[in-house]
Amino acid sequence: MRIALCGGTGDIGAGLALRFACDTDHELLIGSRDPEKARATVEEYRETLEDRDLEASIKGFDNAMAADRADVVVLAVPPYHVRDTVESIADRLDSSTTLVSPAVGMQRDDAGLHYNRPSAGSVTAMVAASAPDEVPIVGAFHSLSAGKLADLDRELSEDTLLVGDDEDGLDTVERLAEGIEGLRALRAGPIANAAEVESLTPLLINLAGNNADLHDVGVRFE
Amino acid sequence: MRIALCGGTGDIGAGLALRFACDTDHELLIGSRDPEKARATVEEYRETLEDRDLEASIKGFDNAMAADRADVVVLAVPPYHVRDTVESIADRLDSSTTLVSPAVGMQRDDAGLHYNRPSAGSVTAMVAASAPDEVPIVGAFHSLSAGKLADLDRELSEDTLLVGDDEDGLDTVERLAEGIEGLRALRAGPIANAAEVESLTPLLINLAGNNADLHDVGVRFE
Repeated sequence: MRIALCGGTGDIGAGLALRFACDTDHELLIGSRDPEKARATVEEYRETLEDRDLEASIKGFDNAMAADRADVVVLAVPPYHVRDTVESIADRLDSSTTLVSPAVGMQRDDAGLHYNRPSAGSVTAMVAASAPDEVPIVGAFHSLSAGKLADLDRELSEDTLLVGDDEDGLDTVERLAEGIEGLRALRAGPIANAAEVESLTPLLINLAGNNADLHDVGVRFE
Repeated sequence: MRIALCGGTGDIGAGLALRFACDTDHELLIGSRDPEKARATVEEYRETLEDRDLEASIKGFDNAMAADRADVVVLAVPPYHVRDTVESIADRLDSSTTLVSPAVGMQRDDAGLHYNRPSAGSVTAMVAASAPDEVPIVGAFHSLSAGKLADLDRELSEDTLLVGDDEDGLDTVERLAEGIEGLRALRAGPIANAAEVESLTPLLINLAGNNADLHDVGVRFE
């Protein structure tokens, strides 16, 4: 598959890019608002991969060029950039592109991190409201630690939860997610259930902060 | 310890009572608004335990009598009965009684179950606002399946998350929870973090409904 990572120069973008490069033969398109930054970051990813004697099909573009003709576009941007990013790539999307939302709105206070629910109900719902109607939307990858993904020496053994209203889109993202070794994809229902899925991310960060040995903690449902 | 289960005739009360009876030597006080119902239910628990050649210290009372002189009081009642139950036992509580809140407000729509956040911020915060100021409050046991707890043939291997503002209360509930075989207690921070912990319950029910083999699913963080 052709996988575009918009905002693919950021933390979660780096983690997903390196895992896809390591574990799959997908064609990876790293997008950024600044195509020079995308190309420079791709060079860093290539060096990390070469250190492990790995080669991958990975190139840098601006976000719209990355999204163009991709099978899956991952919106690896902070929640406050999600709407702008969707607008900047909207004319490259159609019913054959699955748009994936991993972002979570959070706010910090003295107690820890809290889910900051967008007025649309969830970031995934906000993506669905911003994208052209025919584009399949799937929420996924929210609970993965960027640091753990990017550290290729660490084995994964955790779940990621998918929400979506389009079965084909869900199937596509399930295959994509389970291409990463040690990652299992579970279904959490339609986009209307996204808030409970997104709420898991601040919970994981609070657990990491309140328990020894749970740095970069993941979740398994069994 | 003396453990009172207010609403201990209900589903989660039954599950906790049977596991405590099986795995610990705590003195169990099953509370109900109707003490006759509490006593009849205790007879059922005794029969279940006798079938396994187990004996336990377990008696039925009205909620206030159950809470009297208990070390820990678990509010095993639905969220809309939490406030009334706390008021009915308030004069039996003091700084030496840890009050435990396992309840979660949820609402169902076509997509599944959703977290129904109380105006206090969480059910645990509602308990803290209703109880006398000196009583330590701990949120715990939210994510446990009542059916799985009550089926003593099933081995547990899952986590429960604790929130609380009182370290001694947290330590007490951690010991209580980890007395159940296969249950690990993790800290999720102060009561201000309870909403993210309580939100896990509708998520687990949505996962059970959307994935094969995840009936009565639990959660592990690792």
